[in-house]
Parts: sequence; structure tokens; C-alpha cells
Amino acid sequence: MNELALLRRIQRKAPKPGPGVLLGIGDDCAIYRPEGAHEDLLFTSDMTIEDVHFRREMHSADSVGWKALARGLSDIAAMGGEPRFCLLSLALAKWADQRWIDGFYRGFLRLARRTGTTLAGGDLARAERTACDVAVCGAVPPGKALRRDGAQPGDGIYVSGRLGGAALGLETRRGAAWNKHCLPKPRLEFGLLLRDRATAAIDLSDGLSLDLHRLCLASRVAAVLEETIPIFPGASLEQALHGGEDYELLFTARADVEGAVRIGTIRPGRHGRVILQGKQLAPLGYDHFR
Amino acid sequence: MNELALLRRIQRKAPKPGPGVLLGIGDDCAIYRPEGAHEDLLFTSDMTIEDVHFRREMHSADSVGWKALARGLSDIAAMGGEPRFCLLSLALAKWADQRWIDGFYRGFLRLARRTGTTLAGGDLARAERTACDVAVCGAVPPGKALRRDGAQPGDGIYVSGRLGGAALGLETRRGAAWNKHCLPKPRLEFGLLLRDRATAAIDLSDGLSLDLHRLCLASRVAAVLEETIPIFPGASLEQALHGGEDYELLFTARADVEGAVRIGTIRPGRHGRVILQGKQLAPLGYDHFR
Repeated sequence: MNELALLRRIQRKAPKPGPGVLLGIGDDCAIYRPEGAHEDLLFTSDMTIEDVHFRREMHSADSVGWKALARGLSDIAAMGGEPRFCLLSLALAKWADQRWIDGFYRGFLRLARRTGTTLAGGDLARAERTACDVAVCGAVPPGKALRRDGAQPGDGIYVSGRLGGAALGLETRRGAAWNKHCLPKPRLEFGLLLRDRATAAIDLSDGLSLDLHRLCLASRVAAVLEETIPIFPGASLEQALHGGEDYELLFTARADVEGAVRIGTIRPGRHGRVILQGKQLAPLGYDHFR
Repeated sequence: MNELALLRRIQRKAPKPGPGVLLGIGDDCAIYRPEGAHEDLLFTSDMTIEDVHFRREMHSADSVGWKALARGLSDIAAMGGEPRFCLLSLALAKWADQRWIDGFYRGFLRLARRTGTTLAGGDLARAERTACDVAVCGAVPPGKALRRDGAQPGDGIYVSGRLGGAALGLETRRGAAWNKHCLPKPRLEFGLLLRDRATAAIDLSDGLSLDLHRLCLASRVAAVLEETIPIFPGASLEQALHGGEDYELLFTARADVEGAVRIGTIRPGRHGRVILQGKQLAPLGYDHFR
């Protein structure tokens, strides 16, 4: 069973959302509208686990902390939100000494400060492996959140930057690509710009092939990749298509948006299908459950 | 370094809360007031980790799912909130098969349904050990959230029920005590009742001795336990004083509250000090970092 199948199984079992929950399981964030509020709130949570998302001998504590927050902020960006606050649940293995913990918080709080995200609470525990989960809350004007399910046939498909850099960095552990892998910059400002321009959006956390497949499934459309995909210098097409953790935004729009590169067009067709050079592109991006 | 010291270190490093965050790190929940809203929102997150919070050979999947949500709901109860929604981040070890996963969600969603808590999103991953983190959002009328820091000398100290049951259950694995350990009922209705009556409140997750110490530290007062502590049938005084996971509410008030038992009085004195039978009671409750 892959992640999507597991998610569907959970969705079927979960009761209908209660009052105020405008969007539940299945997008980058949930949307909650507090009674009387002038803003909709976005919520997302992301885990970062030792030997799954990072290795202690490879990644600095600072980078682990930074990325732990970056993942959620990227989800907020994909929905056009401004970050407000976050909760950090942190389980520390025995090996994580005071120096490592300080480094982790240094990276985490540096990104928090830059993006105006208040660390408002969380949980602490000891565990066999170090792991954390970060829940982020963002805000958008009522009804303005970008979603995955708004793409329509004829819309252009765009990306906010060059792809494959994080995968290349993981391979080479050098230069700008390694920096992109270790300290990804969530595209928050670009997300704000998209609020009135994109018809649908998703962040590229698991690879273009899988994330575009997800966007098309949610929008009940197909996609054709027909323009040149912008590739990070030195990365392969494979890395650009299937590499995870680029944290660029993938979106659809009726007209070009400055700063984004058009890579294809939304078409009617089998929901979720992505065509590249006349062939179906398999959603080979990162899936924990495959 | 114990949990309290680690928490203080984090608090010192974290920047001041941004707009809307009325209460940050250090209470059962953070408080966020959305612009224009008729409600304050409460946020808490709690981890549940294999071999730390549960054992697969001892706890049913159903109980693990139930407790994973109960812990956050108890924090919402302690602040007088009504639950709105939650996010569930779940990391699954290889041994967790479809049957276990279904059992986990059955327990989780049963408690969610009973308490009107929408499962609105989260994250899924594979990991070496099964673990989850649940972030819960609750709501209270503006300014009505109960906090830890409002206790004043002369206030009575109360508990919402008998203590030590969960610790006894963990020891004997039988009867009502085992049930209390496996399927704790967050005191949400009682929390609502306390909104206009309690001066301070906290939930009893780590044991009376430690949680009362925390309440007194936050309120900058001391406490004297002078009345009989209500003990779960069969439990020892030791279990009632230091046993965790009872998930009853501990609160202070100027007058008796129906359904609660008075156990002592708030006094001026060294902040955080708790006196029992003329001697200082050590905060021996559960601390991951001691």
C-alpha cells in the first residue's frame, strides 16, 4: 500500500469535518476559519526523523533544525499563506548532547526569525532515535488560500525555480546544490504573489513527477509537460523530474507569472496522468510506503 | 539537564511572540487570537513513541491511537477549551501492519468523534520505531483560557478525580485501573465548568507532585497539601502523588467547585515548593530528561 492509498483509507474512515474546518485531509494544509475572523488559518505538520530524513554523520544539527521548519513553511507558501506560529515536538536520542540541541535550535530559530514564525509551544521527550514534528500555522485573507484542486484544462503549468538541486546536493554534498539540500528557502514571498494568479498550487517536496500527479489527481485533470523543465546546474533530468526536497512551488495559472517558468499545460484526461514526450511519466518521487 | 531546564533554555533563545500569539511556550497550550475572531484558539502537541510511551506487546493499537489524541485533549481541557480539530503525524515501523494501523485509527477516531475533534491533516512516514505526534486546536471565548500562572495565596487546590489509577493499571494490567491507563477520558466538560471558577489549572499528565510544582512555579507561589488526597481504589499514596497519566485536572479556586476534591491551599513561599505533612514534596513525577 502506498502513501496515497493509505491516505484514502484514512479519509474514508474519518468523520466529516466539524464547523470551521473548510478543508481537511488531502492538501498541503488544512484550512480553519475561526468564528468572526478576518483571516483563514492554514495548518500543516511534518516529521523529520533520524535515518529517514537526515543522518547525524551527514547533516549538521543546524541544518536539521532549519529543514524541520522549512518543510512546513513550504506548505504554507504553497497555499499563499503568511506564517504565524509553530509548535515543535522534539524527541531526542541519547547521542544528542547539549551542543547538538543548541545547534538544532539555532537553525530552527534562524529560519523562524527570518520568516516571522513564532515558536509557540510543543513537546519534549527522550527516544531511541532523534525525531521531530513541526506543526505550522499560517494565515490568508478569507477564501484566498491556494489549493491543489483548482487546475483546469488549458491552464499553464509553472515552477518557481530550477529543479533537481536538492537531489544533486545529496549526491555530491558540495557547493550550491548541497546548500540547497541543507538550507532550503521556502518560497513564501512567491506564494503571496500567487494568491490572485494561480488556479492551483502545491510545493515540490517529493519530486515533480509525484507532486504534479497529486495536483492533477486532486483537480481531476491530466497534464502534458511540453516546455523545457528548468534544471539546477549540474543536475540530471532524472533528478529534476523525481528528486525530492527542492521546495519550489508548482502551480497552474491562466497567464504567465513573472519569475516562474512554464513547463506544460493542463489537459482533460485520466485524472493524475502526466505525459512527457508522448509517454506517461511514472510518479516516481519519494513515497515512504512504496 | 531536566525538562524544565531545557525548556527555559529554549524560551530564552526564542524571539518574542509575534502578533496574535497571546501565550507562548510554557503552559499546557499556546493561545492565538486570530484577527477579528470571536474566539481564542488553543494549541498543543504531544508525542507518543514506541518503547517510551507504549509497548507493542502490552498496549493494543486501539489504545495507542486513543491515548495519542487523549493527551492533547487533556491539555485543551486544562485550559477550558472545546476541541476543534487535530493534525496527526504518524511514523510507522515495519512491524505495524494494516491490522495495527486500522486499530490505531479506530481508537483515535473513536475519541475524536466523541469529543467533536476533526482529524484535519498531518503527515505519514516510515521509521525504525512507530511514533506519532498529535497537534490539537481548541477554542475558548476571548480572554477565557485558564492558565497555570493565576494561582494566588489563599486559593484552594483541587483535583477533578481520584489519582494513581493509571500507575496502578500499568503495574497490575487489570480491571478499572488498566482501563484508566489504556483509555483515559480527557476532562473536557469539567474544564468548561472551570472557566469562570478556577484561578489556575493544569492537567495531571506527569504526576501530582511534578504538575503542582509546575503550576506553583508559573504562579510564583508555594502550596501546602493538607487535606486527604483522593486515591484510586487499590493504588498507593506513592502512585497518587507521583504516578503519571491520570489526566485529571488540577486547579486552584477561591471557592469549592462541585465534583472536585480540595487537597490543599496556595501559600506565599518559595516558588514551586510543595509541602506535605510538614516536609517538602519532591517533584518526582515523570521527566524524560532526568
